[in-house]
Amino acid sequence: MDWRNNRLCELLGIEHPIIQAPMAGATSQEMVVAACNAGALGSLGSAEYTSEKLEAEFAYIRANTNAPFNANFFTHDEPDIDAEKGAAARKRLAPWYDEYSFEKVPEAIPSSRSFNKEICDCICALKPAVVSFHFGLPDAELVAQIKAEGIKILCSATSVQEAVWLEQNGVDAIIAQGFEAGGHSGWFMDRNGADLTGMFALVPRIVDAVSVPVIAAGGIMDGRGVAAALVLGASGVQMGTAFISAPESLVSDVHKNAASNASGDDTVHSTAFSGRKARTIVNRYALEFADVKDWPDFPIGNTLSKPLRKASSDVGSPDAMALWAGQAVGLNQTKSTAEIIEDVVAQTKGILGNMG
Amino acid sequence: MDWRNNRLCELLGIEHPIIQAPMAGATSQEMVVAACNAGALGSLGSAEYTSEKLEAEFAYIRANTNAPFNANFFTHDEPDIDAEKGAAARKRLAPWYDEYSFEKVPEAIPSSRSFNKEICDCICALKPAVVSFHFGLPDAELVAQIKAEGIKILCSATSVQEAVWLEQNGVDAIIAQGFEAGGHSGWFMDRNGADLTGMFALVPRIVDAVSVPVIAAGGIMDGRGVAAALVLGASGVQMGTAFISAPESLVSDVHKNAASNASGDDTVHSTAFSGRKARTIVNRYALEFADVKDWPDFPIGNTLSKPLRKASSDVGSPDAMALWAGQAVGLNQTKSTAEIIEDVVAQTKGILGNMG
Repeated sequence: MDWRNNRLCELLGIEHPIIQAPMAGATSQEMVVAACNAGALGSLGSAEYTSEKLEAEFAYIRANTNAPFNANFFTHDEPDIDAEKGAAARKRLAPWYDEYSFEKVPEAIPSSRSFNKEICDCICALKPAVVSFHFGLPDAELVAQIKAEGIKILCSATSVQEAVWLEQNGVDAIIAQGFEAGGHSGWFMDRNGADLTGMFALVPRIVDAVSVPVIAAGGIMDGRGVAAALVLGASGVQMGTAFISAPESLVSDVHKNAASNASGDDTVHSTAFSGRKARTIVNRYALEFADVKDWPDFPIGNTLSKPLRKASSDVGSPDAMALWAGQAVGLNQTKSTAEIIEDVVAQTKGILGNMG
Repeated sequence: MDWRNNRLCELLGIEHPIIQAPMAGATSQEMVVAACNAGALGSLGSAEYTSEKLEAEFAYIRANTNAPFNANFFTHDEPDIDAEKGAAARKRLAPWYDEYSFEKVPEAIPSSRSFNKEICDCICALKPAVVSFHFGLPDAELVAQIKAEGIKILCSATSVQEAVWLEQNGVDAIIAQGFEAGGHSGWFMDRNGADLTGMFALVPRIVDAVSVPVIAAGGIMDGRGVAAALVLGASGVQMGTAFISAPESLVSDVHKNAASNASGDDTVHSTAFSGRKARTIVNRYALEFADVKDWPDFPIGNTLSKPLRKASSDVGSPDAMALWAGQAVGLNQTKSTAEIIEDVVAQTKGILGNMG
């Protein structure tokens, strides 16, 4: 198994089959550059960026690395503006705003738009080597427009059904995102009440079902995880939580401290922050709203919760923050992005070299 | 990595570091014998056995194999008999009994007792090589009594905290049971609202936290899963769902058909069958009661649901059955127990031999 000459490295033009996950709000342009220069695929978490912000970040990255990189976007139905759900959510959050902030609860409107023609035109002009999507693919015309520029397309799948659909609709590789993963789950097809799927069950079944390369994402923090993912048939990995405490991470010290103190058996999927399932370290906010199901559509929850999350962070309290982290956060380290990648590469080589 | 000379094989006196999971209600004495004679550790799912039944099964197994084997028991608090919860549960189930059965809903009383002194005396007289526990350990005096007989003790852990506690309380090896696993989760320490943990995140953190051998359990169906578990640091694996469609399995054809048709992205943890979280293929019963939280204590639910489950199976309907299965059930095959083990061993050797 020569992991440096594998399908994913060839497809994306990278040295190591490792993708630094595009964590919107956590990934900095400096992290992308550091990941690229360490031989991984750096990813910009661009879901909430304007065209101007995108152009500025691309300019910085290109001034500091010649390596390929990835820009990530959210693809979701534009939300219904449901006045009743909005009012109920604002009422629920009012005591939290009273406790943490001088501000009032914001209006229940979307925080950002789904990937659309305007952003697509911008990204096709900027031409990153790779674009990745979360929550499914944009309209077929936009997919075709991106592919016509020679940009490779990745997308997250949380089931075999989603993976097969993605392959049929033109992705170049599939990110098999397990239950373990931190932040938002990328699910986009109805699961009829079923749980999200853990990595041991998800990765080999997706590998069997598609012909494009599969990238394993969720709970991978070190060389053991990378080697295990390759053994299950993945062509590479995407790692996010491994980088949240790096100096290049934009999350606050309160978030980094929570990550350092977390075991990993203390995270939960909560819909209370954005309206979609996202994995956070358990805190008072996630627990209080664990059973609430009638949140406004994603991403209206972001508009409602973001000032509260910042206010909580500003007073040094993790209680009302979105403490995005995966279930292996207990293996989290405070090394630099470059050191993390170097160590993971060395560990993986050590393990693969000891096998057989 | 010489997997035939590893710590678990030495500890348990087995050829391959593979445990056939003790699936109460699915495992037959014939399956235990077949697993043992194929070089794995066969496990009898003895949680609901009387002493007489235990003695008869042991006699059959010992007449057909000289290899070591395991007897598994449930260890749980004896339930409160809460009349209000019992009445509410019986009312909920009444329309189901009307639909599937001529019987009435049973009284809300426990279906079986936790592991206790009587069973402990019986098992110490029978002296299997290994006893494994689910839902924590019995009282320290019973643990000491078993250990004094030279019987090795295994127990499931679903978190690092549980694993560390188990090691401190005398287990010889720890079964790290991931979120993916079919049937009952073995959790026994409060998780404060956190999700159960997937294998990629659970196994390496438990390996780091304890010094006894770790056995990975959940989502392992073939040699890829075994090799990945070893790469994550486990000394062996426990496989259950891999065997449910074997001819030696006691589950009904309706259950086997459901397993053959399941993808694996269609299972859910339900408390509606027994009162504790257990993974089943999604069906009408699990969906209808997905949000019900006030079930009587485990195992009263088994008393309430078992006649209904059997009646559903008898009419060929999976709708009211407990279709225990893990999240990799999509890789399920209908081979014999011996063939499954032989194939898994060959696949694992092939993968480990190709590494490096």
